[in-house]
Order: sequence, then C-alpha cells, then structure tokens
Amino acid sequence: MSQTKTPSLRDLEHHDAFIERHIGPNDAEIARMLRVIGYDSLEAMTDAIVPSKIKSSAPLDLPPALTEVEALAKIRAIADRNQVFRSFIGQGYYGTHTPNVILRNILENPAWYTAYTPYQAEISQGRMEALINFQTLCADLTGMEIANASLLDEGTAAAEAMTLAKRSAKSRSNVFFVSSGVHPQTLEVLKTRAEAMGIELHVGPDAEAATVDSYGVLLQYPDTFGHIGDYKALAEAVHARGALVTVATDLLALTLIAAPGEWGADIVVGNSQRFGVPFGFGGPHAAFMACRDAYKRSMPGRLIGVSIDAEGKTAYRLTLQTREQHIRREKATSNICTAQVLLAVMASMYAVYHGPEGLTRIARRTHRLAAILAAALRQAGIAVGKDFFDTLHVTGVDAEAIHAKARAARINLRRIDGSSLGISLDETTTRADVAALAGLFGAGIADIDALDAGTPDALPAALARKSPFLTHPVFNTHHSEHELLRYMRSLADKDLALDRTMIPLGSCTMKLNATAEMIPVTWPEFANIHPLAPAEQAQGYKQLIDELEAMLVECTGYDAVSLQPNSGAQGEYAGLLAIRAYHRSRGEGHRDVCLIPESAHGTNPASAQMCGMQVVVTKCDANGNVDVEDIRRNAEKYSDRLAALMITYPSTHGVFEEDIVAICDIVHQHGGQVYTDGANMNALVGLAKPGKWGSDVSHLNLHKTFCIPHGGGGPGVGPCAVKSHLAPFLPRKLGEDTPVGMVSAASFGSASILPISWMYITLMGREGLRRATQVALLNANYIARRLAPHYATLYTGRNGLVAHECILDLRPLKDSTGISAEDVAKRLIDFGFHAPTLSFPVAGTLMVEPTESESLHELDRFIDAMIQIRDEIRAVEDGRLDREDNPLKHAPHTATQVSATEWTHAYPRELAAFPLPSLKLQKYWSPVARVDNIYGDKNVFCSCVPINDFKEEIEAFSEPNVS
Amino acid sequence: MSQTKTPSLRDLEHHDAFIERHIGPNDAEIARMLRVIGYDSLEAMTDAIVPSKIKSSAPLDLPPALTEVEALAKIRAIADRNQVFRSFIGQGYYGTHTPNVILRNILENPAWYTAYTPYQAEISQGRMEALINFQTLCADLTGMEIANASLLDEGTAAAEAMTLAKRSAKSRSNVFFVSSGVHPQTLEVLKTRAEAMGIELHVGPDAEAATVDSYGVLLQYPDTFGHIGDYKALAEAVHARGALVTVATDLLALTLIAAPGEWGADIVVGNSQRFGVPFGFGGPHAAFMACRDAYKRSMPGRLIGVSIDAEGKTAYRLTLQTREQHIRREKATSNICTAQVLLAVMASMYAVYHGPEGLTRIARRTHRLAAILAAALRQAGIAVGKDFFDTLHVTGVDAEAIHAKARAARINLRRIDGSSLGISLDETTTRADVAALAGLFGAGIADIDALDAGTPDALPAALARKSPFLTHPVFNTHHSEHELLRYMRSLADKDLALDRTMIPLGSCTMKLNATAEMIPVTWPEFANIHPLAPAEQAQGYKQLIDELEAMLVECTGYDAVSLQPNSGAQGEYAGLLAIRAYHRSRGEGHRDVCLIPESAHGTNPASAQMCGMQVVVTKCDANGNVDVEDIRRNAEKYSDRLAALMITYPSTHGVFEEDIVAICDIVHQHGGQVYTDGANMNALVGLAKPGKWGSDVSHLNLHKTFCIPHGGGGPGVGPCAVKSHLAPFLPRKLGEDTPVGMVSAASFGSASILPISWMYITLMGREGLRRATQVALLNANYIARRLAPHYATLYTGRNGLVAHECILDLRPLKDSTGISAEDVAKRLIDFGFHAPTLSFPVAGTLMVEPTESESLHELDRFIDAMIQIRDEIRAVEDGRLDREDNPLKHAPHTATQVSATEWTHAYPRELAAFPLPSLKLQKYWSPVARVDNIYGDKNVFCSCVPINDFKEEIEAFSEPNVS
Repeated sequence: MSQTKTPSLRDLEHHDAFIERHIGPNDAEIARMLRVIGYDSLEAMTDAIVPSKIKSSAPLDLPPALTEVEALAKIRAIADRNQVFRSFIGQGYYGTHTPNVILRNILENPAWYTAYTPYQAEISQGRMEALINFQTLCADLTGMEIANASLLDEGTAAAEAMTLAKRSAKSRSNVFFVSSGVHPQTLEVLKTRAEAMGIELHVGPDAEAATVDSYGVLLQYPDTFGHIGDYKALAEAVHARGALVTVATDLLALTLIAAPGEWGADIVVGNSQRFGVPFGFGGPHAAFMACRDAYKRSMPGRLIGVSIDAEGKTAYRLTLQTREQHIRREKATSNICTAQVLLAVMASMYAVYHGPEGLTRIARRTHRLAAILAAALRQAGIAVGKDFFDTLHVTGVDAEAIHAKARAARINLRRIDGSSLGISLDETTTRADVAALAGLFGAGIADIDALDAGTPDALPAALARKSPFLTHPVFNTHHSEHELLRYMRSLADKDLALDRTMIPLGSCTMKLNATAEMIPVTWPEFANIHPLAPAEQAQGYKQLIDELEAMLVECTGYDAVSLQPNSGAQGEYAGLLAIRAYHRSRGEGHRDVCLIPESAHGTNPASAQMCGMQVVVTKCDANGNVDVEDIRRNAEKYSDRLAALMITYPSTHGVFEEDIVAICDIVHQHGGQVYTDGANMNALVGLAKPGKWGSDVSHLNLHKTFCIPHGGGGPGVGPCAVKSHLAPFLPRKLGEDTPVGMVSAASFGSASILPISWMYITLMGREGLRRATQVALLNANYIARRLAPHYATLYTGRNGLVAHECILDLRPLKDSTGISAEDVAKRLIDFGFHAPTLSFPVAGTLMVEPTESESLHELDRFIDAMIQIRDEIRAVEDGRLDREDNPLKHAPHTATQVSATEWTHAYPRELAAFPLPSLKLQKYWSPVARVDNIYGDKNVFCSCVPINDFKEEIEAFSEPNVS
Repeated sequence: MSQTKTPSLRDLEHHDAFIERHIGPNDAEIARMLRVIGYDSLEAMTDAIVPSKIKSSAPLDLPPALTEVEALAKIRAIADRNQVFRSFIGQGYYGTHTPNVILRNILENPAWYTAYTPYQAEISQGRMEALINFQTLCADLTGMEIANASLLDEGTAAAEAMTLAKRSAKSRSNVFFVSSGVHPQTLEVLKTRAEAMGIELHVGPDAEAATVDSYGVLLQYPDTFGHIGDYKALAEAVHARGALVTVATDLLALTLIAAPGEWGADIVVGNSQRFGVPFGFGGPHAAFMACRDAYKRSMPGRLIGVSIDAEGKTAYRLTLQTREQHIRREKATSNICTAQVLLAVMASMYAVYHGPEGLTRIARRTHRLAAILAAALRQAGIAVGKDFFDTLHVTGVDAEAIHAKARAARINLRRIDGSSLGISLDETTTRADVAALAGLFGAGIADIDALDAGTPDALPAALARKSPFLTHPVFNTHHSEHELLRYMRSLADKDLALDRTMIPLGSCTMKLNATAEMIPVTWPEFANIHPLAPAEQAQGYKQLIDELEAMLVECTGYDAVSLQPNSGAQGEYAGLLAIRAYHRSRGEGHRDVCLIPESAHGTNPASAQMCGMQVVVTKCDANGNVDVEDIRRNAEKYSDRLAALMITYPSTHGVFEEDIVAICDIVHQHGGQVYTDGANMNALVGLAKPGKWGSDVSHLNLHKTFCIPHGGGGPGVGPCAVKSHLAPFLPRKLGEDTPVGMVSAASFGSASILPISWMYITLMGREGLRRATQVALLNANYIARRLAPHYATLYTGRNGLVAHECILDLRPLKDSTGISAEDVAKRLIDFGFHAPTLSFPVAGTLMVEPTESESLHELDRFIDAMIQIRDEIRAVEDGRLDREDNPLKHAPHTATQVSATEWTHAYPRELAAFPLPSLKLQKYWSPVARVDNIYGDKNVFCSCVPINDFKEEIEAFSEPNVS
C-alpha cells in the first residue's frame, strides 16, 4: 500500500462521528434530496430560505464536535464533582429505591422515553393505561374522586390549586390563606403566581385559617416540619364560609394516615417523587392534583379518561381537552401543557410493583425508624416534635455544631435556624443511618430492636387510615418481576414511539434522543443529589448548568438564561414576568397589553393572562404571515399600554417571515418588548439568533430543539433566555432576593435531565448544530416537494420554500370527498406512522416536521404512505371507494377486525391492513379502533377500569367455534 | 393506632423482598396450587417427591437473603477492588467501544438477552437475521464461503478446526501442525483436546509447516506477536500433501489485509470480541468458524440458514442440525451446543452500525497509531518488528523496567520475556496513549502529526486487501442512530423471549433473569478488565470467583469447582477429562468405557467421545427410569474398563429415581466414577446434593439454574464441580502446571457474567434457593395435574408426582388424528407461547418445565392454551375439524394470512388468529408461517438474503386494489 494513499491520522480520527449518527441522511442522500428541491448545496438552499437580514455571519462560538466517548468522559468528570451524601433534608424530597426493573425498562427504555404526548389516542393506549394507574393511585391515596395525569412540581401544583379554588369557591374573597407549615419553595411559587394574578396571600399558622376571611386555604399534611395536624374541624369552618380547602400532602404518609378527602379536603396536591424517582437535584418528578368530581371541568392539567372505540371496546383518551390552553387560549385558566408523564409512569409502576401492602410496609418501616430515632433523641434529652410520620423537628440544639458533625459524616440534615433542624427518613434509611443520626446528637442506641419494642408509633391515633386503597387488580397482580416486566412490555408494545417510527409533529420537533445523551441521567452523581444539598456538594451541577447556560446564550444571541422553568409554558410565563417586572422597574407598570398573532401557540395567550396581561390578537395575511400592518395598528393603538408582542419564529405556519426585524422595531418604538416563542428554534440554531435581530426574550424547549425526549408528555425544560436589560428579572433561586420570584419549585427546575442537552450540544459542536438545522430545513422541503403533486402546502416563504415544517392543506379534499385531516391522521396509523400535528395552527390541515434525524429511507416511507392515502382519497373522488365505507373513515383497523370471520366493509380486508406491500414485512397493529371522543367527554371516567368490564367485553366477542 | 398492632422493625425490613420478586406465585397462590395437587404444604409435597435417601437434612450453609439494594452495594464493593488500567496486552483481546445504542438496546435489553436458542424458527426470525448478518460478516471478511453462528472462544474454535480438518483432509497423517505464532491460550486448548483425542501436535515456526508431515496446519494471521506473514506459498505446499490450512485471524485486520480465503485457507477461526464486546476478563465473546463450502456438513456449531415458510416466503432457521450433538449423540464430531449468540448479535450490530467504511476507518486509524508508535520507538533506538497491523513486538529492552514504569502509569503491556514485550493498539487508543507509551521507552513525540506524515504504513504491500466486503445493504443502511435503533427493535419484535411469555422448556430452565442480577455486568470494573491483566488489578474478580465457587460447592455437595468451562458441554468435557486423568493417575488409564442411559442429553455421549471414551448405552425401563439391572450388567461386563457412568438427575424423564444411591454404589464397586449431569439442578438446590449421595462430578449450567440469561443461544457458563479426589484434575489456568490442560481460552471462562449468578444466590440466600426449588416442583406438578384430563404425563415418580418438568405424551393423539407434537408446538405460537421442548427425550412428546419464576396467572394462561388445543384435537377426532385442513396443521398463522382478502381454509379466520378471547387483548403475530425444514437443508444458504429477493417476494403479493 503506497504511502500517498494512506489517510492521515487526523483524517481518520472522525470527531464528527456523532453528527453522522444524529443526522438521518448521509452526504450522498443529501445531494440527491437537494436535487429534488433544486439546489446545489445546503448553503445555497439555506440562503434561499433564511432572510439575509437575520442570517448569522459568524459560526457559533462553540467548540468543535466531540465523539461519544470523549463527551461521556468529559461529563463523567463533571459528574464526579458532585458529592453524594446521605440526605435527610426532606422538605418535599425523599430518598427512594427505583426498582431496577423499572429503571431499566422504563427510564432507560426508548419505547417509553421517546414517546409523544398521547394526543393520538389509538397509538398511546399503553402509556395512557399507565397514567390511568397514576390517576387511580393519586385519587385512592388522597381519598378524592378524580386526579390528573401529573403536574410539574408540588409548588406549581399548589399554585394551580390556588387558582382552581378561586374559580370554584363560593366565597368572593380575594385572599388565599397559606399555612406557615407549607414547604418554603411552595410558598415562593405561590407568591410569584399570586402577585402576577392579583391574589392576596395570607400566610399564617394553621389555626388562623379558620378565622382569616379567604376564598381558600392551603394546608400541608404532614407539614413541612413533619407534624401531622388534625384539620377536620378547621375544614368545616373553612367550608362554612364558602371557601375551599387545598391540602398539600405526601402519598407515602397517606398509606398510614387518614386521606384528606376523608376529612374535608376539596383539592389535594403533592409530589410522587418518593415513588421511585430519584432526587435529581430537584427534578423532574411528577406532581399531581386530585379534587372533588365537581371541579373536574375546571381542573388544570391533562386528564386521561376512559371512552370506547369504534367497536365499542374500552379505550383510553385525553379527556376534557376543552379545558386546556391549546383550545381555550387567552380564556385558559392555566398554561399547563407539558407535564411529567415519564415520571408519573415510573411512580405508577412503583405502586403497581409494591401494591398496597408493599407501600404500607415501606411507610411503616420508615415511620418505625423515625419513631426509634425520636425515642433515642428524647432519651438523650433532645426535644423532638410529636405526631409525625417520617420527619423529626429537632429543637433547642446548637444547630451549626450538629450540621458540622453531620457534614463530617457525609450526612445532610435540613437547616431551619440556629437552634433547630429537620431530619426526614425514607425508604432508603437503614439501621446504620439511624444509629449515625442519633450519634450526631450524642444519643447512642445500644439495642435498636429493644428500643423498637419499647417505642410506640408517633402517628396520631385519631388519624389512622382505615379506608382501603389500590384495591384494583392492577396493583395486586404484577408483583413478581416477570409479571411486571411483561406488563410494562405489553403496554409499551401498544404504543408508537420514536424507536419504531418517525413522529413528524409540526412544532414539536421529535428528533433523535441519542443513547449517549441519556446515559449520564441515571448516574448516581446526577440522580442522587438532593435539591437543597449544600452548594459544595453540587459543584458538578453548577459547572453543568453554567456551561449549558453559556451554550444556550451562544445559540440564541441573548445574554442570560434561566434553566428554572420546567416546561415551555413555564418558560413563557417566566419571560413575561421578566417583561412585566422590567416595565415596573422603569415606572411603567401600567403596560399590560400583549399582542399575540392569531397563529400563536395556545400557551402564549394563556401565559399572558397568567401575568395579568390583556391579550390583543393580531391578524395573519393570506400568505400565513403575521399582518405587519395590523401589528403596527395595534401597537399604535395601545402605545401607552403596550407591554409585549409574542411571536413565533419561524412562524407556526412554517415560514421564515421577511419582516421580523421591522416588527421588532415597531414594538420597541411603542415601548414594548419582543417575546419570541422558541418552539421553532430547530430552524434557527447556527443560522440566526433572535437575540441579535431585535428580540428581547425567548423561551427554549430543550425537549424539542435540544434532544430531551418527550417522555410521552414530559418531562420538559423551558429555559428563559433574555437580553441583558431583562437579566435582573429572571426567576429567583431559593434563598435569593431578586425582583421576580420562583416559577418552579426547584431553583434549577428539572436539573437531572440537563445532561441530555449538554451532551447534545457537546456532541454536535459548532458545525454539527448548524448542519442539523440545515438538514431539518432540507427534510421538510423534500417532503413538501415530493408531496406537491398530491397535497398543497398551505404556506411557503421566499422561493416557494418552507422552513423546518410544512402545512399540508386537506380542506379541499374534505370538501370534495368528506375525508378529513383526522381521517388521514388515523389512516397513517395503519401504515405504522404517528400522525403529524392535526389542525394546528390551521384547522383541517396536517403540519409535518420531519426533523434532521430522519433518514431519507424514513422520509420516503412516509411519502409513500401519504401518496397511497391520496390515491385512496382519489378513489373516493372517483367513486371507486364509497364515501362513507372506505378505509380512511374506518381507520385505524385492528387485527381483530381484519381477521374476523365476518367482514362487512365495501373495501377488501387486505386494503385495510396492508395498503402497501412493504407493510407485510413489518406491521404495527393499532390496539384499538378509532376512539370515540364525544362518548369520552360525555362519560368522564378517569380511574382504572373494573376488571369485569374487560372480561365482559372480550367475552362479548363471539367465542370462536371449532365446528 | 395501638402499639400492639405495630409490626416490629425487624418484621418490616423485608430482606426476603427479592425472593417474592423471583418466585412467581405468592403464598395464597401456592396454597391454592397445593390444594390442586393434594398437599397441605410445600414441605409435604417435597417429601412426597424427593427420595428420603438423598434429601438434605440441613439447610444450605449460605447467608440469608439480601435485598437488591444490599446485594448491589456488596457487589459494588467487590467491583471496586478491580482496577481498570489501560490495557495494551492484546494476545487476542483488544479494547473496543461498544456503541451506546447497542449497549442499551441489545446487551441491557431483556427482549434480546432473555431469548432462547432459535430451535423454534418462527418465533426467532429476528435474532436469526442478526446471526445471518454475523455469518455474512465472518464469511465476507475471511473470504470464505460459509461461516457459523458463533463458537465459544478462539481457542476452542481452533480445536474444533483441528478436528474438522482431521475429518476432512485427504492426508491420513495424525499430526496437526501448530505455528508457534498462535496465541498461547489457543495452544493450551489445542494441547488438551489433542491429547484426549489422540492427535499428535507439532508446534514449530511457520516455515516448518511446509515440511512437517501433517493432516493440517494452524497459522495465526497476524500472529500473536503482531507479524503479518505471507502464507500463500506455504498454503500451496500444505495442500499439495492433502492437508488443510486453518488460519486464526483478526476480523479488524482483515479490513486492510488480504482475506485468508484469498490465499489458500480452508478453515478460518477467530474472535469477534473487538467488534464492540468488552474484555470482560476473558469472556464471553463470540468466536467464529468459516470454511469452504465443501466442509459445511462437517462444520461444528450452529448454522443459520435461509429457507421458505408455508407461504413460500423467505424465513430463517437452524440448518443442517443433523450435524449436531443432540442428533448424532455418540457419533457427534463435536459437543458444541450453547454458543455465544448474544455477543455474536452485538458484533454483527457493530458491523451494521459502522459498515465497511467505518470498520476500515477504525482499522486504518488503529494501524496509523501503531505505525507512529513504532516510528517513535525506532527513532529512540528501540527495535520493533516489521509488517504489523496493530501489535508491536519490542525486543532488546529491559522488560521488567518498562513494565514497572507502565504499572506506575496505570498501563498494561504484554509480558513476553525479560528482554521483549508486546504492545497492541486498538479502537480506544488515543494520541495521548501513544505519547504515554512512547514515553515509557524514553521516546518523545514532539509533533505526532508530523511523525504521522513521515511514517509509511507497516502493512505488507503484497497483502493489501483488494476485495470488497459487507456489500449487502444491511451493512450500508442503518448508520444513523435512529435507523439502527429501529432496525434492532424491529428484529426484537419478531421474536418471543421471556419478557413476553414463559418459555416452558423442559431441561432448559428458562427462569427470571432479574434486572438487579444483570446490572453489574456492564459496570466498567467488570467489563473492562483484560484477561491477562496482572492479578493485583483483578482482586475483585478473584473475590467474586472464590465466593461463587464456595456457593456452588455448598449447593452441590462437591468439594471444588472450576468456572472455566464456558458452556454446559464444556463442563461435561472438563468433568470427563478429570475422571480420565484420575484413572491415569492411579495407573488405570485403560478405563475407557462410559455408560450412558439412552435418555441422556446428546452432549453426554458427544463429550465422552471427545475424551476418547467408548460409549455404552444402557436402557430405560417402562416407567422411564434408568434400568438399574442393565447398568449393573454393563458395569460387570466392563468392570475392568469402566471409566464412568453419566447420569442426569432428576432424570431427563422428569422423575426423581429412587435408585440413584444404589446406582452410584454399583459404579464405584466396579471402579468407575459417577458423572451427574447438572442440567436438572433446578430440581435439587436446597433439597439434595449430588456430591453427598455418591456422585463424583457434575457440571452445572449457570445459564439454567443460576439465572444467567440464555441470550438467544449463549453465553453460558458450565462449571465443573468435583469431589476432592478429582479436584487436582480440574482444568488448568493459563500459566499453571496442573495435570489437565485448559478447556477454554480464558482461565475463568465467561468471567464477566459470573456476577449474575453471584447476585442470584446472594439475593435468594439459604431459604430462598430452597423455596425456589420447591416452587419449581410445585409449578410442574400443577401443570401436570391440571392438564391430566387432557394429556397424559408420560412418566411420574413416587405418588404420581413429577419433578420440575413433565413430559406430555402426544403420540396417542398423533395415532388417532395425525396431529403431531410439532403441530401442537406450532399452534402454541398462535397463543403467544414459546413451545416446550419438542421430542426430547422421547419423540412425539412435549416436555414442559415452567420454573419457579412463572406466576399462577402465566401457568393458567398456558394451561388454557393447551386445553383449547386439546379441544381442537378432539374436534379433529370428532370430524368437526378436517384432518388436514385444521388450525393445528397450518399453525402458526400470520397476520397476512388471516387478513388476506381470500381465505380458503375449512376453519374460520377467527379460530386461526384468536382461539381464545383473551388473545384479543394481547396478541403476538408470528412473522412467518411454518418454516420448511426440508427445503432449508436441501438448499443451504447461510448469508444475508439479496435485497431483491425480498422485494420480489412482497411484490408477488397481490397489490391491494382500492377499487
């Protein structure tokens, strides 16, 4: 082999390896696709799409790409800077053992973590069953009639309860009473929310709740110091004045103490973290809200309900969606959108795994240890509170001295003040821990079993739990590991996630969640840090957060970033709070009008109303662009009151609008701030920076652009990025004293999943990120062009090109054939595809966003399906297929339907099941036929289905006869 | 809550938690099942089954159970005693990066690791496709016509080649020439095997191979010191005398140097470890054998071939099974059985992921680094070999001094002798490594790129690879992570593994492989230790191995254990070698007769013949028991020559035979040794110990009784356990000098999976292991009893009870209806079950072993399926179903069949697809119809199927018509 032919070491090192793994099409395929859309190079295509006014001239100031091995080594070194102490801090976060079978087969399994929000009910039956289990878990333990499918954290859940109570209470008071026994971070979030919404908070000792005139009260049960109060009489007093009782509680404690629903709670909130979800430095964990049935139509958050499918069989779906922001928009009562589905699934599986007996045993053991520790401390003359579950309030001690001893023993206790402290025990606490804890106070335990025998429970006798819970078979069946493993697999198999198909969801950017990005998340050094651990133990997190913030600053052109918001909607809310506070700081607190184009995401107006802003909707023109003149007109009209414009860029219509710089100028001229929704950031990274073209603030969706998986509907991270003048108004961190309060319960939100985005940016580097954006544009334009002979793309920008997504207009076909966009979406399931975004932002359309991670092979597979569907629609047009009895109207088709002895449709079975020959090699079967939405909303049922219903259902099928 | 009702801390601690997770039925279910079979307690049932003569009186001397958390903490501490240095030792084991997507989604995914050997072709299409890819990979790179689906390690692969060549060569020489350039461990294994089989080894320099009269030669290419020889002329000389050329090679090197098949190799062996499989302290990794087509019917090991299914579509199956030991028994040419499927799948996916270009790039880069290091060393005056790929042979140095410097830098080099050493580079080697390595020799590298530019390749120009490889689309398509992820998922979805169904395989003990047991396997401290790392770096492994050996000694009643055998058959072989050496040591080397009952596993006689023993088959009586009188007769007849009796206990007929103690006495009286096959050890652990009732030696199957997953057909571990008199004759470890040589290439065999069994025993503890055995007995008897009205159990022991498995006799039904056991096995697929063992040990029967991990729910599901099948057979008997056109004969049914527009069968579609209503809630679809075995054996094709064949096939289906 001659020397000249040998590539150099440098050539061979291939630091770009990950870029090729992340981006679907390879160089040859990219060239082929460019030819289809008529460009010579990605650069030429980019120039034709992105307005030159906003295009970045310089490359991103980020390091070049690292390989997976290099990046993992780098983040390993960061992780090693975190120190995992034994944490007994409590305050809403408790140690827990994630069952290994759940860790590996849910949290580390792409079938679960790459799934999307279950809007498409038919292909989401598995995760909706898990969420129904979660809802049942929360409703059962709290003793309430209904529970939702998770909220972001306990703090925001309490804030949502505050507004739900406001909407629901008879009392017309504007005061919300908050017990001084709630967790400090909950109080912080409440303060922020109350202030923006004009609600008056009254914080005081529990007893005052009876006397202060309020529309609602919030109690903590057990309270933040561990005390279990008996609130029955108090609740009666509150009810007597037409006010509602909200209770923040602990699910594990409720296995032993009376359910709040049994003593008068109207709304119950809490966090399911200790059901198998690690600390994660504060998140993500699944919070919940449960309430009386009467409030269900006013309850925030997603709710899984039971309905029936086209065959009359039980099927799950998101119910009462009309409550949600994407429908109600500025009339929404909450902006909650992304929740914590993956963590709710984990918590529900923890309950399925342990069952009521197992959970009770864990709770009893935790309490026993707490009682023993209390007894030991008392024997040593230390004062400890009474009536507790797992948390001891120790008073009259030299707290600093104890903390110093604890630190030396690698133990964290809760800091309260100079003479008192808190100790919370949990599932992970051992005998040795109790001995060590006692030792910190000079209290020896000679014989723990003897002490155990001599120590009564410290639970108030009057509040003993007597009602059963988790009696449904699902919580009493899957207790062997094999059974649980198979149950989880059977649920996963019902669903379509990114591990089986592209999910071409416009505006939702379902891209590769690479394994290397996921790996650090479950490392103990990230998973097992308590959010209130001393700063010196979280140096790795600090470095990670600082570096990620700097990366996001560079990608967006802003000057500062807060990672606290744990959803995109929370990021919007934080951004608008910053704008609001900025105006106030300049004596312009009267600025309260927020312009929002009609094409905006529903969260935009919903978030604006949560900040007390008045939403003024502006028009779009015939090309789908925002109507600049209408913006100008309204900016002038509301010039004195103009607070902000919220705009999405590129637009939700999938177009790079040319006038964005001019629009920013108009808003600024009238004293307003420009809020750019970052939902479409995947079309911008490396090409253009909102912070540089005149925008003042954006939220990002790390779960869209920056590879955090959707988890079936959360977790998400919605950082708020701002220019320097807004930086002082980013959300406060716990214990800080900055103008704007906390928007989430944890200072750094969903900290434990930040490694995913850090890894993504590190793996892609300067060039990779830009190329990813270009290929995202290419993939969308390739689909639009290939489908052009079959479907019209509703809006295009310059040169007839779209941005990173395209809206396929199905309205003309509906008119001519009666086939709706929904029919097409459901028919795609028969081809094994998750549908594109349906009827957003334009009713009757499908918005397709393929993302850069999809290969040409997968794009072509989708295009083939869409063309075949168009052929079917043509057959309806031509009369070859019946207008009503055709495979589109009856999609999706189940295996039971197509293999039933009787087949009554006017089209053949084979067309129903295998419309393309390639499906014979690989076929996904929808577990249910089309789900009946109307039935579900009319018959709201949100708990586990009684097992007999299923039995009757399958027995109702004709028993096959061998004769 | 009154104090008296509070359970104590001790009660609540629940150290038995794992036992309940592992064992399927809970206490209430066990009581219910006991009632069905007529016993009050597990103890009473046990007494009724296990002969009192052998029943252990004392509990196992093992610690009580630990929880998952406790056990993981304990093994974490053990792991931490291993020290991971950078290893440049080579000698057949090289650093590699396991692609993260493969790590998580194959090695850590139960859908892959819990699968069984693909005997049931229809439900194994996914892993067989992966194995066809492996075979193609090996055949392509070696330039041979056919390759098998893995062997145990390179050493045993070379030994198998030695015997294949013996069977195939024209030369009648008894000499096998072995190059002194082969790896030392390969030579060790060859010596052991040759000695036992009476083959004469001649070890010498390559050049002698041309002149020494031999029937075959073994060359290493590149050789163990890294040198790449040009063997073309040599191969011609060898061929000229009618002898065959075997080449041990390195797959990565073959991307750059000429394939052995291109210069005259007849057989090529090697290890695919460096294709993404970690060191693991020596194993498991997938070795391979490739050969000329002419030898395929004589080739050992499993071979995946392409056939067609009942619809004429391409389908994979195990081909040429008639070569294998389970068919040929004492006429077998090899005892190979379990291979390394999971690791072969990983290696094949590594090739799918990187493709030919990626592999070549990795090889080139590795070579560049080696060339640069060689240049740097030469510049410093150090002598380094020429013509190498990745390994430098450094001579003329003070080796001890260099090793000392290396150790201080946490680097391992290969020890050769006092003045020379070896350095092997690999995929993981970095620039910094090369600098550090050069530094050990005082050779600085000022500018590595400059040195790179000035350093030519060190590959011999005449041997440059010119032929293409891995041209099939499968190696050129799935290069993005999404594509690979989806490809792996699509394959996994075709298969049935334990994560979806029980696999009630008699004699194969498919029990829970708990997640907690699997977790330590991929820890770097176990995964990344080179098998030849200095002992002080492997202290954790030493502790693990010592402890596991002690645990197994306690479970079996023997005195010593060797963990070296990396399959059950290897364990048998090791045990028989021990017996043989023991006789020789006592001057009784003439003892060469091995009695084996006709009911034995096929590996028994196959292993015996490999030790040069003469197999004498003894009879069974009408009850299925071994015929004691026939054993006595033969023991007397061969009294002078009696070497051993091999017996399985409880018997392969699923019965605890009463006479086992008497049988041992007979054999001992005649000077023989008793070998108890440990395949059925799951019926014994905690109840009885072979080492205590008179047996002298057993092998165990850690992949049966002790929870190592089957991995789709390996890895396995087959420890050899012996009484003290045989202990000196256990297999040698590399570098030791004991009487019996190595049976595997690594001293501790498949060391990296030993944590699984250590964890299992630690988690179950004294009581749990015993209870598991009892429930295994219970589950089998429950099935036998529940099915008694429908199927006869062929053999029972005392009280009409079976052991841990039962043989269902289907022969009468075949006689009356023509429905065969195979039809029933295939029909079970329509119910979503993996079939029981088919026609072993009795043709026309199904042997059912449920294991203790199966819940009552799953047992009942299986029983329901079997009863429905019996009803179908009755319908054939009654004439309600046609004798030929019935759902049994045509099972399994595919989705394409039952949803085809045309349905021509005499029974309804619904009966075909959904014979039980519960299947409508959860249905597994067989990806192919019944596979044609005869076609496959007549038309042997063992590589990836040309993509056009698939295209034509699916296009041959009637294109669905929308009109």
